[in-house]
Amino acid sequence: MVVKGTKICVVFFLLFVAVFATVSFALSDRHDVMFAEEEQDVRKMVEECHQSCQGSQGEQQRPQCFQTCMQKRLGDRGTSRGRGDPRRPERTRRTDRQQHQSNTPYVFEDRHFTARLENEHGNVRVLQKFTDRSELFQGIEKYRVAFLEAEPQTFVVPNHWDADALIFVANGQGTITLIEENSRQSNNIKRGDLFRVPAGIPAYLINTDSNERLVLAKILHSVSVPGDLQFFSMGDGNPESSFYNAFSKEVIQAAFDASSFTFLYPKIHKFRKQGIFKKATEEQIRSMAGKEESRIWPFGERKERGTHSIYKKEPSVANENGVLHEVDSDDFPDIRDINVAISLFNITRGSMAGPFYNTKATQVLMVTNGIGSFEMACPHLSNQATRGGEINPTYERVSSELRQGTVVVIPAGHPVVIEASGEENLEVIGFGLNSDKNEWFALAGRDNVVSQWEDEAMELTFGYPASEVKRVIEKQSKKLFFKAPVRGGRAFA
Amino acid sequence: MVVKGTKICVVFFLLFVAVFATVSFALSDRHDVMFAEEEQDVRKMVEECHQSCQGSQGEQQRPQCFQTCMQKRLGDRGTSRGRGDPRRPERTRRTDRQQHQSNTPYVFEDRHFTARLENEHGNVRVLQKFTDRSELFQGIEKYRVAFLEAEPQTFVVPNHWDADALIFVANGQGTITLIEENSRQSNNIKRGDLFRVPAGIPAYLINTDSNERLVLAKILHSVSVPGDLQFFSMGDGNPESSFYNAFSKEVIQAAFDASSFTFLYPKIHKFRKQGIFKKATEEQIRSMAGKEESRIWPFGERKERGTHSIYKKEPSVANENGVLHEVDSDDFPDIRDINVAISLFNITRGSMAGPFYNTKATQVLMVTNGIGSFEMACPHLSNQATRGGEINPTYERVSSELRQGTVVVIPAGHPVVIEASGEENLEVIGFGLNSDKNEWFALAGRDNVVSQWEDEAMELTFGYPASEVKRVIEKQSKKLFFKAPVRGGRAFA
Amino acid sequence: MVVKGTKICVVFFLLFVAVFATVSFALSDRHDVMFAEEEQDVRKMVEECHQSCQGSQGEQQRPQCFQTCMQKRLGDRGTSRGRGDPRRPERTRRTDRQQHQSNTPYVFEDRHFTARLENEHGNVRVLQKFTDRSELFQGIEKYRVAFLEAEPQTFVVPNHWDADALIFVANGQGTITLIEENSRQSNNIKRGDLFRVPAGIPAYLINTDSNERLVLAKILHSVSVPGDLQFFSMGDGNPESSFYNAFSKEVIQAAFDASSFTFLYPKIHKFRKQGIFKKATEEQIRSMAGKEESRIWPFGERKERGTHSIYKKEPSVANENGVLHEVDSDDFPDIRDINVAISLFNITRGSMAGPFYNTKATQVLMVTNGIGSFEMACPHLSNQATRGGEINPTYERVSSELRQGTVVVIPAGHPVVIEASGEENLEVIGFGLNSDKNEWFALAGRDNVVSQWEDEAMELTFGYPASEVKRVIEKQSKKLFFKAPVRGGRAFA
Repeated sequence: MVVKGTKICVVFFLLFVAVFATVSFALSDRHDVMFAEEEQDVRKMVEECHQSCQGSQGEQQRPQCFQTCMQKRLGDRGTSRGRGDPRRPERTRRTDRQQHQSNTPYVFEDRHFTARLENEHGNVRVLQKFTDRSELFQGIEKYRVAFLEAEPQTFVVPNHWDADALIFVANGQGTITLIEENSRQSNNIKRGDLFRVPAGIPAYLINTDSNERLVLAKILHSVSVPGDLQFFSMGDGNPESSFYNAFSKEVIQAAFDASSFTFLYPKIHKFRKQGIFKKATEEQIRSMAGKEESRIWPFGERKERGTHSIYKKEPSVANENGVLHEVDSDDFPDIRDINVAISLFNITRGSMAGPFYNTKATQVLMVTNGIGSFEMACPHLSNQATRGGEINPTYERVSSELRQGTVVVIPAGHPVVIEASGEENLEVIGFGLNSDKNEWFALAGRDNVVSQWEDEAMELTFGYPASEVKRVIEKQSKKLFFKAPVRGGRAFA
Repeated sequence: MVVKGTKICVVFFLLFVAVFATVSFALSDRHDVMFAEEEQDVRKMVEECHQSCQGSQGEQQRPQCFQTCMQKRLGDRGTSRGRGDPRRPERTRRTDRQQHQSNTPYVFEDRHFTARLENEHGNVRVLQKFTDRSELFQGIEKYRVAFLEAEPQTFVVPNHWDADALIFVANGQGTITLIEENSRQSNNIKRGDLFRVPAGIPAYLINTDSNERLVLAKILHSVSVPGDLQFFSMGDGNPESSFYNAFSKEVIQAAFDASSFTFLYPKIHKFRKQGIFKKATEEQIRSMAGKEESRIWPFGERKERGTHSIYKKEPSVANENGVLHEVDSDDFPDIRDINVAISLFNITRGSMAGPFYNTKATQVLMVTNGIGSFEMACPHLSNQATRGGEINPTYERVSSELRQGTVVVIPAGHPVVIEASGEENLEVIGFGLNSDKNEWFALAGRDNVVSQWEDEAMELTFGYPASEVKRVIEKQSKKLFFKAPVRGGRAFA
Repeated sequence: MVVKGTKICVVFFLLFVAVFATVSFALSDRHDVMFAEEEQDVRKMVEECHQSCQGSQGEQQRPQCFQTCMQKRLGDRGTSRGRGDPRRPERTRRTDRQQHQSNTPYVFEDRHFTARLENEHGNVRVLQKFTDRSELFQGIEKYRVAFLEAEPQTFVVPNHWDADALIFVANGQGTITLIEENSRQSNNIKRGDLFRVPAGIPAYLINTDSNERLVLAKILHSVSVPGDLQFFSMGDGNPESSFYNAFSKEVIQAAFDASSFTFLYPKIHKFRKQGIFKKATEEQIRSMAGKEESRIWPFGERKERGTHSIYKKEPSVANENGVLHEVDSDDFPDIRDINVAISLFNITRGSMAGPFYNTKATQVLMVTNGIGSFEMACPHLSNQATRGGEINPTYERVSSELRQGTVVVIPAGHPVVIEASGEENLEVIGFGLNSDKNEWFALAGRDNVVSQWEDEAMELTFGYPASEVKRVIEKQSKKLFFKAPVRGGRAFA
């Protein structure tokens, strides 16, 4: 009887254990379900957030920082609006040296170019939407960045985007042709040229050179959904890649008054190479290149769409340590409506530019050549005028290595220094977004803004006699470009 | 004893079962609580999302698509920013034929006019906020669409909105009067006229005709909360419907220096018909109509607020298959600040317009008369430059029936075809939003953009000799409007 | 044996109870975890939401209102976009009298100035981001409000913001100096003056008076992240408070070509008073004040940055009950690009302004002196054109006490009345945001808009003979400013 009683209770015990296990599983299951439902890049965003907390927060603030990351996961976007946390430089650099990567949201590497289109003759890489990286970039949300590379003697099929494009030729030479209702305009382009392709205007491109790759750096300003881009082409050999294919056959045939429409649906298409980059013959190149004038169909209208060389004007600053060329809408009126200005920094090896800052524009820097680094002063989030509490202004350093293809965003007002390595010159193209009435101010060297203060202002601010302050700030005789510090073995201290 | 032991264990077993049931209920309860807390229209949004997934995604992509819908429910808006999924046309049409409804977010039917104000003399219908339908419409978030219909001899009481309005008279005739501090301006309006009512300007309207209904199609550009509209009127017989009623009585009496303020608080108000639409006598109509000139109070200022007929200028395109009238800010400077251009398509029965596309403007099409259909080429989301991965541009068809009152949004850059049915002409008014520097390009027929390509471009793109390509694309001699395909029995294939 | 069996079952029972307790705890734990993860200000937002529901909703609508608040907590922001609920005035006032606080989102008190920077010589208070208070303010998201107070003979160290500032001198006198690359411009400022500090331009300020506090009211228009502000200064004695400190020492030394950079890292810094407000000696004041002309460095460029007195032009309206001064971009072209207009109301005690409304601008009112109250007519949310259903326009009263430092937001189109108390005059500065083409219309008194209606319009709208309507609306002979109602004991009825 005891045995039976024991058996029954054992049975109950086992049942009980089974239930307990089930319940526990259900409880954790819920959690797993929530995780499973998270999209890949939200998880990535949270990872980056955690790393930033570890990197930048003191012991006290880390729990609250993690809490902010947690809320991002739960979808509470209310708290994610605001400045991100700058990084503790030492931690970042250690990670950098290990991974050749940067976790600060201001730096974009190859892996952040999330949309690509390529074949053996060329490629287009589009940087992810800025606000997908961080809410810090809401102010430049409508802008996108892209690079295009075309091998020698390559033709890019006609296409249009729902975004205004401003394009800088970083390398090589070619011919760009813009198509309109009753006209076509071709321009030869070469290294240093800027040109515009307005939204919706079909354009095609050829790399006319036999040896050099044609490299274009582009800023795109979306006109439809802010920050989103849509690409439209009439085909590349693959019927599905043409937007004509989206219409019903009867409609296309009625539109073209044709009973057959073979060239959109080629029988032998499987032998056609796919992709928007096509190899052109020398003959075809010769025929298309070199047409500087617009070919105007009878009675058509001719609009001004030209190119502008960044080297046309004298450099704004030039000394043995570097050269700065600038283009704004006074120089090139085509760019007035997209509100972008262009700066080209050529920093001699072993030299640096800055510190300087832009008053209004947020500058997107793209490294076209060389190796170097940058440092930026970032006001510390938790003490700034976005949330509660006493403003105790402190500044953290954001820094990273720079190499060809790196993209860095420097927000308005933020002081920055760009250094070239000891071995190579560093060439950086900067697109200043929202640049209307922008000015840049040097914070050291000749014409720096501190030198304009009245003596009393210097004394009251620093607590030193004005003469002593001026002695220090007026010593450096160069403007903007200086000899960089000598660094032992590493790209930055 | 065994019996007792058994009894106890049975008791335990029952207790255990009870607990298990409670726990299970608690677990599921949590889930139900979450559902119960969801607002009605979030659920609707998710429904539409699910349907779109079923309609458009291949087997492989459906789980991820459902996941996106799930995240919307959990409030993760990060993933909902971006293009929606275009629909598989067959599935959509089957649903359409069954329900006379369209699930594509680009098409708005009567049920999407979520705010209404009506009595027996007229009605105002306002289309839901665009971004309540889909995040696709962020770029036009500030714009709202509305229709007003007034029966013959109806007066609409003075009112103002916190939005700039651009109004097209789709049918009938009447008189519109705008009120300012020291002036009043009346204009007669008739079918085809456009006029502006700036934000905050009080206006009243009468349908002066004895037989015809007055029908107005409106685009509103919000000036306060983006995409939100607020309506202000001084009353319609019901004291509560006047904003004066919101102030305390003492304040109103002090403001009007009056001890009584009867006309705002009529004793016999219960006999007053309510609503902003009032029947007017013939005498009143005669008295108010026909005053083309501004009546200027002594020493007041007169601003230019006039009307402009869409028929004033020659049509942009006209042939036996259709007529296109266009108005932009060069024709009618009043519309420059709200950045909208107007197109009126009159497509003969059995004919079609397009394919064509707008380079910059997103076009909101409103069907004022007739029956037809449209097709639009939509780049496929998962392969475009908004998320990760290789761009493999493909295009899906978005299509739907069109009938009086249907509203369709055609984003910038997207090629579209509009067809009239075989029985009736189709009249469509199109408001081009964000239209500064917009152009439209034909993709077939005379002056189509492909015909501007150089021969080599045609060969390289299509893989056919240029002569053959040109033979096809130059066959159609008409411009924009063509004979539509003959369709057996259904509005579209 | 029974005893043993009983013992075992008792053991099992206890185990079971233990498990049950654990499971229950785990279930509730989940809930607590979710709560614990909520950020402080989300909870505050929800509290305010709940209070608003209680205050404004009828019995029927409260559950749905609470549901909306619940969704905010769960992070579903989709539903929080739209107008907030106006308050039932009685409930608000009862709460007000008890707490001297207002719960309506349109009124901001001292506790809403969430960022502060102060020492014994002065303080800067920055109002929270508008959209942190309510989604109602999306249209003015980019604007921020701040007050600065400086004690007599105080110097504010040079600093720049990433926002354009428009500043009104509410009290006192001083000198403002703007710094540029090759120039410096000083202007004396006094009560009633307006001046601009563009984004990124360093500026410093001194209170030159010996007795009076210098009080500035500021509107800031962010140029980087919408609605976020970043503050940059070169230091205040504390090395960490200078952005130079963010760069590595080697970089700074190389930039300044200096081996030592003592004045940034003073040894005796612990004796330096911290903070951006510094006491200046009489000598220093005398030296810096009174330099009206720009001091131009050789060959530098001089830009126009001046001040403009709001008293320069004749008042727009003036009678025994009040005075209104206005400044727009025609008067002061510097303010054209930030799209703000300024109004200064000086309402005599026992008098009131309005009702009136702005056609396009959202007006931010800041009380600089005195005590009073305001009433505003707010269209009732659930019946307006943002969600579904029949528009049945009704209006609710939003009202509150006003005292020095109170900030009130009056959206475009909304009628408002401002009353001074019986004891003191009320002085209110109003910044009209998005003010391009804005006009204000009186709704009572001389030149009110109703008086412009045609007779028939009056009859049809109110159902009374026009003569009777006109008799009432033309009785009040004053314009805009009237004698206020006499109120017994309380600031508002």
